[in-house]
Amino acid sequence: MVNVGVIGYGYWGPNIVRNFNLVRDCKVTCICDSDPKVEAHLSKIFPEIKITRDFNTILVDPEIDVVAIVTPVSTHYELAKKALENGKNVFVEKPFTQTPPQALELINLAEQKNLKIMVDHTFIFSGAVSKIKEFITNGEIGQIYYYDSTRINLGLFQRDVNVIWDLAPHDFAIMLHLLSDRPDAIRVFGKSHVNGMEDVAHILVYFTNNLMAHFNVNWLSPVKIRSTMIGGDKRMLVWNDISPDEKIKVYDRGVNHDTPEDIHNLLVSYRSGDMWSPKLDQREPLLIELTHFIECIIGNKKNISDGKSGLEVVNLLHACEKSIRHNGGLVIL
Amino acid sequence: MVNVGVIGYGYWGPNIVRNFNLVRDCKVTCICDSDPKVEAHLSKIFPEIKITRDFNTILVDPEIDVVAIVTPVSTHYELAKKALENGKNVFVEKPFTQTPPQALELINLAEQKNLKIMVDHTFIFSGAVSKIKEFITNGEIGQIYYYDSTRINLGLFQRDVNVIWDLAPHDFAIMLHLLSDRPDAIRVFGKSHVNGMEDVAHILVYFTNNLMAHFNVNWLSPVKIRSTMIGGDKRMLVWNDISPDEKIKVYDRGVNHDTPEDIHNLLVSYRSGDMWSPKLDQREPLLIELTHFIECIIGNKKNISDGKSGLEVVNLLHACEKSIRHNGGLVIL
Amino acid sequence: MVNVGVIGYGYWGPNIVRNFNLVRDCKVTCICDSDPKVEAHLSKIFPEIKITRDFNTILVDPEIDVVAIVTPVSTHYELAKKALENGKNVFVEKPFTQTPPQALELINLAEQKNLKIMVDHTFIFSGAVSKIKEFITNGEIGQIYYYDSTRINLGLFQRDVNVIWDLAPHDFAIMLHLLSDRPDAIRVFGKSHVNGMEDVAHILVYFTNNLMAHFNVNWLSPVKIRSTMIGGDKRMLVWNDISPDEKIKVYDRGVNHDTPEDIHNLLVSYRSGDMWSPKLDQREPLLIELTHFIECIIGNKKNISDGKSGLEVVNLLHACEKSIRHNGGLVIL
Amino acid sequence: MVNVGVIGYGYWGPNIVRNFNLVRDCKVTCICDSDPKVEAHLSKIFPEIKITRDFNTILVDPEIDVVAIVTPVSTHYELAKKALENGKNVFVEKPFTQTPPQALELINLAEQKNLKIMVDHTFIFSGAVSKIKEFITNGEIGQIYYYDSTRINLGLFQRDVNVIWDLAPHDFAIMLHLLSDRPDAIRVFGKSHVNGMEDVAHILVYFTNNLMAHFNVNWLSPVKIRSTMIGGDKRMLVWNDISPDEKIKVYDRGVNHDTPEDIHNLLVSYRSGDMWSPKLDQREPLLIELTHFIECIIGNKKNISDGKSGLEVVNLLHACEKSIRHNGGLVIL
Repeated sequence: MVNVGVIGYGYWGPNIVRNFNLVRDCKVTCICDSDPKVEAHLSKIFPEIKITRDFNTILVDPEIDVVAIVTPVSTHYELAKKALENGKNVFVEKPFTQTPPQALELINLAEQKNLKIMVDHTFIFSGAVSKIKEFITNGEIGQIYYYDSTRINLGLFQRDVNVIWDLAPHDFAIMLHLLSDRPDAIRVFGKSHVNGMEDVAHILVYFTNNLMAHFNVNWLSPVKIRSTMIGGDKRMLVWNDISPDEKIKVYDRGVNHDTPEDIHNLLVSYRSGDMWSPKLDQREPLLIELTHFIECIIGNKKNISDGKSGLEVVNLLHACEKSIRHNGGLVIL
Repeated sequence: MVNVGVIGYGYWGPNIVRNFNLVRDCKVTCICDSDPKVEAHLSKIFPEIKITRDFNTILVDPEIDVVAIVTPVSTHYELAKKALENGKNVFVEKPFTQTPPQALELINLAEQKNLKIMVDHTFIFSGAVSKIKEFITNGEIGQIYYYDSTRINLGLFQRDVNVIWDLAPHDFAIMLHLLSDRPDAIRVFGKSHVNGMEDVAHILVYFTNNLMAHFNVNWLSPVKIRSTMIGGDKRMLVWNDISPDEKIKVYDRGVNHDTPEDIHNLLVSYRSGDMWSPKLDQREPLLIELTHFIECIIGNKKNISDGKSGLEVVNLLHACEKSIRHNGGLVIL
Repeated sequence: MVNVGVIGYGYWGPNIVRNFNLVRDCKVTCICDSDPKVEAHLSKIFPEIKITRDFNTILVDPEIDVVAIVTPVSTHYELAKKALENGKNVFVEKPFTQTPPQALELINLAEQKNLKIMVDHTFIFSGAVSKIKEFITNGEIGQIYYYDSTRINLGLFQRDVNVIWDLAPHDFAIMLHLLSDRPDAIRVFGKSHVNGMEDVAHILVYFTNNLMAHFNVNWLSPVKIRSTMIGGDKRMLVWNDISPDEKIKVYDRGVNHDTPEDIHNLLVSYRSGDMWSPKLDQREPLLIELTHFIECIIGNKKNISDGKSGLEVVNLLHACEKSIRHNGGLVIL
Repeated sequence: MVNVGVIGYGYWGPNIVRNFNLVRDCKVTCICDSDPKVEAHLSKIFPEIKITRDFNTILVDPEIDVVAIVTPVSTHYELAKKALENGKNVFVEKPFTQTPPQALELINLAEQKNLKIMVDHTFIFSGAVSKIKEFITNGEIGQIYYYDSTRINLGLFQRDVNVIWDLAPHDFAIMLHLLSDRPDAIRVFGKSHVNGMEDVAHILVYFTNNLMAHFNVNWLSPVKIRSTMIGGDKRMLVWNDISPDEKIKVYDRGVNHDTPEDIHNLLVSYRSGDMWSPKLDQREPLLIELTHFIECIIGNKKNISDGKSGLEVVNLLHACEKSIRHNGGLVIL
């Protein structure tokens, strides 16, 4: 049995506790929240779980194998470090840390201690992303031409981060998971209209192989859109995460040309075939993710959302900050 | 009666002829096409119209008041110049010319000769754009935060121009018509995957007043999208030109905040009210446009799509070329 | 403080308990479920609520003011009768009872004892239905021409009822709530393909004033549709309950004609104006409903979903049974 | 070369002329319209075609092989009879005739004279219907459970026919083409609100094999819907003819059960697999239809829209009339 201590019981905490308790051979034995009212509430609804306001209770508890850090990003580094030093495996909310060096230090510490880190990039465990990964890996999309994502809605304005730190971690984690190539440069164009934080931004990510990814994040959109298009030389794919069904549509469409002469003479033709919307795994992504994490700890499975994945996202976020400070200047990664 | 001579009877020519003939006090008296097969066909279907393969026939015909130039962009300057020199008013396809100096020369020539130029930016005469213009002018959108347009589909690849010259003239003409502010800088990021011409591009247009417009043009999209979002501090608007109805949706949504302290303390609140989809003028935009042109000639009405409008679009297209050659470098306008 | 005892903790029970506890001056003090495993689970998650397997515990508890009956329809009559006899107000799941006489008896009993009955027609407390009711009452739809509803999806097959008893109670309750006129005849056409119960049915409901309502219920549809169209001589309305937003669209469209001669000469014209999608109350309908019920008990407010409403729906369901047994024969109400 | 004479040049006439002229080995040699203004217009735009106001010119012209009757239904019988008597093959607008005996007489006459009749049920030549036919014939849908069609919009009111004669011929022709079984009874429920003609109707069509088809036709709908659902025991299909693409969606969904005991014990399970939207033939259905007709005449191909098809539709329309006159009484076919 893997015992889990959870630090932080805000918006996302209840989902973490509920799902850890659904994982086989795993249970939450202690929850910490610094708010006395939350502590009182937790005591009532979880009479069999230890409740505390002091996170050290969790960090030093010899029965606890995993510490789940579900707190604001500014506290991740310190809490994760202490947890690792106390011999705990660590599950930490996205984004992993505030800076790349912090992430690197935690990765090294975990390696020395032979402990596992998992960063909570929930989306990469969703049925939709798993299916897209399958398509790309099997070569059904072919050489990728473009990757274009829109993640916009009205609010939620946050006090301490801009729209990029709020929304882009999802997209970066998804893109890095899906593509085998790694980005080599980034540019960001942002504007702030309401509270001094950027609330609208366009992000361009360059890869060595002629692929340019584009991300549109916006807190001022009247409609909520969660859409990603991936175009390849074999097929093209649209993922609409808002749609109640048919979230993924694969189009057997593209451009055909046989020889360089054809291209020169504009003898391109269009292939416009069937559209296909695959059935997706409907299970809750967070449960799949936590099950995966426990299997990594117990069964030594390869972790697909480890500290290195977390670091890659933090690297991109930091490059965004730099580019935005230089009005969209190119930041080489 | 205004007599029109039409040069070029390709894809768009039949619409031009049909609509000029529908305008009151106006008729097409001569059509020129250099292809003998087209000439033969025209002779059969328009027995009462003079048909020719030599455009000079039109340019020197003393009965003709307007020359409509419906030919590839590379021929616009020369044909328009000759037509003006021969005392004809000129209707010319978009984009107006290949270079800004050509456009400027034609504008000056027309002024000297007291002739009219109209550039065929058909969209600005559509019911949708007229309605959006009305909303913006009446202050219903308020201060504009962002302008974001997507014009993507599969093909049509062209031999001599990239996706920007093919698709962006529409968007530039619409934006310049809708906004009273003028752009002051531009950046373009493009990639070519098939025939050496850019087939995917993102364009950022900057205005002095904290407005950033973004245009996504793409020849490699499996789905056809024609969508523009305009967000303001009062209302937000989505124009979906593909939708068979409800093309424009106005959302009474936004962010409220009263004082700078509110903003500092993140006391922003969201206003989420009704959505409203206005009835649009269903008439054919090209007929409205040509009627407007003839009224400008006969009645001295102010032309909303004159040579200067054409020049502004050509200026933006040329700035795009420069930026793309410098990998997205900022081009000051 | 109004004390509530809940009988039945199946699919819907958790929502009932949660929402009664959210109503001001109201709390759940006892829950009964006959399944020992459910009982054990309830004891753990609600340590401060009395848990029992014997519903008599609730019926005789002098502290309890309201009994909520959240059990299969076959048990409603007996449980409600005993609760009323013990002086309890009764909240009962839809459909109210299996037969009209049972419903009538309960209504009379409640009146004699001066107790309240509420039948759980949750939908009539939704933001969408409230808004439609407002439109109809204010005369914005005008004289109603037709009422057409589609409620179809794949499954859920039930062992003991057909698709009509499963899905139509929602539609009947909504229609009866929205329209001031009462149906005077009904016809039903159904087919069973899988387990001997009707799984596809079309229901026609007649009113004296030339209005014909149509309901399509279907357990064998590949797509889930929840859509109602109401056409009137002033405006027309479409309610799409699946849509994440813009659930209600009001169309300023219709037919104009001035005199009988106009009609004779077919001088009808079409009015095609704006579409308007009103903002809806987003609160959970069940909470609004339970709050309303408690206000009826404490404040003597008029109950809009009382036993008589429940009886009207049971009457229609029984008429459906009769019609179906006679292959769509007309049943006068 | 097959020579065609066209009688009637109203709304649909131009399409008929244009498409007959596109068919290989076929040309329109004479057009008749009784309106002098239309005659004058035709003379101008078709200088090489004989134009007349007297249909007898066409009927007696020895050069003409096919007479296309594109006039109101009340004239079909007389014109078709005369054309057949003069040895012409006949193409006639839908619905074929006003009464079944008229249709029967024309069929017999054509057989005696060894001439061909084609009734213009254009939809059955569309890419969508061809693809659905293919699915059904190949057994991909399986045993059909239901067939449900909605064809509604605002207007067009007609002076002499109700909404059933206006809209249902399309649906009847499509259904009869798609299904190998024949209907054996029909019921119709209609209401008239505006000009004394039914403007809203529900039609139920029964088949011997437990299949019930339903058709909703309505002239008072604010939105235009053209949708058909066909559910079978293997797969289910939705055809949305308004959608610009993905008109047909095939769902690999259904109900599984192995033995009668399973069903009794409600051990049904749901199969929810992929959705698939096939590419459709984009060619103009009318051109495919006319090409087919000419091939029937020249090549003796089997006609899939012959007089018998036309008669079947007229039979259903007449049964509708009877049922509506008896308030939805069952009419045995």
